[in-house]
Amino acid sequence: MTVNVKSAPGVTTPRISCCGTDVADPLTEDEAATLATRFAALADPIRLRLLSLIAASGEVCSCDLLEPVGRSQPTVSHHTKLLAEAGLIVGEKRGRWVWWSTVPEALGDLREALTND
Amino acid sequence: MTVNVKSAPGVTTPRISCCGTDVADPLTEDEAATLATRFAALADPIRLRLLSLIAASGEVCSCDLLEPVGRSQPTVSHHTKLLAEAGLIVGEKRGRWVWWSTVPEALGDLREALTND
Repeated sequence: MTVNVKSAPGVTTPRISCCGTDVADPLTEDEAATLATRFAALADPIRLRLLSLIAASGEVCSCDLLEPVGRSQPTVSHHTKLLAEAGLIVGEKRGRWVWWSTVPEALGDLREALTND
Repeated sequence: MTVNVKSAPGVTTPRISCCGTDVADPLTEDEAATLATRFAALADPIRLRLLSLIAASGEVCSCDLLEPVGRSQPTVSHHTKLLAEAGLIVGEKRGRWVWWSTVPEALGDLREALTND
């Protein structure tokens, strides 16, 4: 039987499970919805390769993203747009090219959701 | 102009980009494909909440996953199956219930793909 003990706001009370184990509170629905949108942006090999390039390079001119992933400018532009809409990268226009860099806080939130404790 | 310098196998030669920046090598296509499958499994709020529960609890009886996420047994079973197929959790059947735990290496690979260097 699962027993829920009411507690004061902000106080986490461990659930006592039917099997006698303490079950931690999961992510809230809102937190999970935000993270799921960001993980969805990463569920594509080209976007992962672009993110890895941008993360490893610090700041990258979009002109330099084409050859390493072997895709055309419109394709790369489409995928960087999706990464940016998910809040994972930000771009700064300089002349005719956009320079991309990662959003460290956003990547940190995703890493934290993947920790084992 | 992008200049590619051929190097011995296993030796990474930085690309000299058109803008004079060093562009790192991206993930390989195979690495990216594997990671993308795993990230796709996380692109769902319920699966993220289940994973967070399992990760935080160490090992959890599937009977204890229903109430925290407010879903029925078939729904939870469907989502744990998808997490398991993606290699993110493993289950051990004990009696009528499955006990789930995370696969630390798989989560570690995903965290590594989200580092900023």
